[in-house]
Amino acid sequence: MTKNRLEAFSDGVIAIIITIMVLELGVPHAPELAALIPLIPIFLSYVLSFVIVGMWWNNHHHLLHAVKQINGRVLWANMLLLFWLSLFPFTTAWMGENNFAATPVAIYGGVLLLAAISYNILVRVLISIPANEGLAHALGSDLKGKISIGLYAVAIPLAFVSPWISCALYVAVAIIWFIPDRRIEQNVER
Amino acid sequence: MTKNRLEAFSDGVIAIIITIMVLELGVPHAPELAALIPLIPIFLSYVLSFVIVGMWWNNHHHLLHAVKQINGRVLWANMLLLFWLSLFPFTTAWMGENNFAATPVAIYGGVLLLAAISYNILVRVLISIPANEGLAHALGSDLKGKISIGLYAVAIPLAFVSPWISCALYVAVAIIWFIPDRRIEQNVER
Amino acid sequence: MTKNRLEAFSDGVIAIIITIMVLELGVPHAPELAALIPLIPIFLSYVLSFVIVGMWWNNHHHLLHAVKQINGRVLWANMLLLFWLSLFPFTTAWMGENNFAATPVAIYGGVLLLAAISYNILVRVLISIPANEGLAHALGSDLKGKISIGLYAVAIPLAFVSPWISCALYVAVAIIWFIPDRRIEQNVER
Amino acid sequence: MTKNRLEAFSDGVIAIIITIMVLELGVPHAPELAALIPLIPIFLSYVLSFVIVGMWWNNHHHLLHAVKQINGRVLWANMLLLFWLSLFPFTTAWMGENNFAATPVAIYGGVLLLAAISYNILVRVLISIPANEGLAHALGSDLKGKISIGLYAVAIPLAFVSPWISCALYVAVAIIWFIPDRRIEQNVER
Repeated sequence: MTKNRLEAFSDGVIAIIITIMVLELGVPHAPELAALIPLIPIFLSYVLSFVIVGMWWNNHHHLLHAVKQINGRVLWANMLLLFWLSLFPFTTAWMGENNFAATPVAIYGGVLLLAAISYNILVRVLISIPANEGLAHALGSDLKGKISIGLYAVAIPLAFVSPWISCALYVAVAIIWFIPDRRIEQNVER
Repeated sequence: MTKNRLEAFSDGVIAIIITIMVLELGVPHAPELAALIPLIPIFLSYVLSFVIVGMWWNNHHHLLHAVKQINGRVLWANMLLLFWLSLFPFTTAWMGENNFAATPVAIYGGVLLLAAISYNILVRVLISIPANEGLAHALGSDLKGKISIGLYAVAIPLAFVSPWISCALYVAVAIIWFIPDRRIEQNVER
Repeated sequence: MTKNRLEAFSDGVIAIIITIMVLELGVPHAPELAALIPLIPIFLSYVLSFVIVGMWWNNHHHLLHAVKQINGRVLWANMLLLFWLSLFPFTTAWMGENNFAATPVAIYGGVLLLAAISYNILVRVLISIPANEGLAHALGSDLKGKISIGLYAVAIPLAFVSPWISCALYVAVAIIWFIPDRRIEQNVER
Repeated sequence: MTKNRLEAFSDGVIAIIITIMVLELGVPHAPELAALIPLIPIFLSYVLSFVIVGMWWNNHHHLLHAVKQINGRVLWANMLLLFWLSLFPFTTAWMGENNFAATPVAIYGGVLLLAAISYNILVRVLISIPANEGLAHALGSDLKGKISIGLYAVAIPLAFVSPWISCALYVAVAIIWFIPDRRIEQNVER
């Protein structure tokens, strides 16, 4: 079974998710610069989510690049990841429109955590296919994935201390992933 | 005639359908967890439809994987299937916003039934092309397809007895298809 | 220059156009079947547009299938066609929400006419590339394209006599194109 | 690392951006031609943005066509370009709905400027990869890119003199790019 359509479908879904988030930026009716001020928190939540969805796409791109074979279980594990990503426009808008209040920030992190766990499941399902042993070797202990899950899990309750700590942690995970997994790149190229 | 663009176009349409359904989850204006409670039925109908559209994509993926040749009639049979799938965002939202009332649940099932019949037509048109005889052999009597149509046909009137019976049947069909058609996989790999 | 990305981008745009049209079907708040009755004209205009956009995609698919080479002018001719297609969601909704009144039906036809003319321009630009001479031979006098433009031009003023005559003509063009251009298929396969 | 998915993802995002802009054309409730008159500025801003996004896609297509190799930095430079493009639906609608007032026209130009700078960054990142030296040779001093950035930078303050001068400059840049970069085409074909 080829991975081409899996990549194409995931690209389509992620492209739509990253683009429709901007629809939450309601167009102001007044032509003054001041009319943009109430949009600042919505814009900031959009920027954060754009970076995070971009990060997921990059990781997905790198992960599947190293994959030789897929099966029916991979299709469903991938669908689970896409499901959590599809909730981003909702959580992004809720967080932005409520000015980064504690509960929306925690729920935003909850969806991030569930996406990270799904990504981990996808990695495990892919590694369990014998033809992908190069991927298992390349990923090693998948430290980045485990740190991400840990940071998201910590960030959720911290939202009720200060939502800004949580947001800083969400940004921290994005920075960790910013440089795509060189281990995969190097091992694949060998 | 190659099947690549047919796959790409179908992937695009299905990716958009599965993603715009989430737009029906209207963003609440209050930042409390309680503000999410009225969204629960809409969320549940979204989850159900996400799984079902995912199921259709998986089946479409498997079906076309085994196809060697297409023609103009295949393009239109595929378009008919996409038409019914394109009504999912509407029926999903109507069902969710009305808390799984009998009529929306029945109409939801009606669109599912019409999609299942269209899928069956697509299968027949594909099999009628001599180059795809491997597909005919792989599908056999297409028992799953026939059971799906039967269960949907039964679920529609049962919505007026209890909408939950209908929903259980919609879920049951998804479970039947959850494991993609191993017959196709096995026969293609031979 | 390869045609792959031109096809992929066009597939993406057409897939989005055909799918977002359904968003105009506003979800009724009441769970009764009667709540769907006011949506009937919007639904009919959606069905008509779905068939017409499907027709354009099929034609585009067949046309580009026979193309060997593209250039910068092809990119822009294709963009012009996509521009008129992108207005379909607007004209479809305007026609449907105003119950097929004369002016919206005429404007709907105007956009169809401009799309048909753009398609003709795209065909001419493609034929003007020496490597595509097989396409020129396959299309011959492009009778279908000329009949379409003629029928749309006639249908627009007739909307003010009776919008239903215009709609019948729009359907007639779709039927003419329903069977994709066998001349192309046959000549390419030789 | 192959560039196929980068192209596919960018095509998807740009296809969605170019298409959802049309959603700002609110459907009028009256069936008279006069009901379209208030939409004229929104339509004009849509046409302008459609041409500009089309221009970006064409450039992106030509640029990546000449690329032999990509890396993780290319993915992020591309994501930055897509981010600014994703704000087009917002700035287009704000400019159109406020009848080309000075501030929205200036902000519109600001996003154009940031997109042009990001495109320049993408070009530099691509050229810095040794395998793409043919691209560096083909682009030469990238005069067009520099002129675009200059014209956008001039157009922004001029919006407060007259928004129409700014719009004329935005159109001028589109005309400069209308003919895709023949230098790339010629050098690649050698």
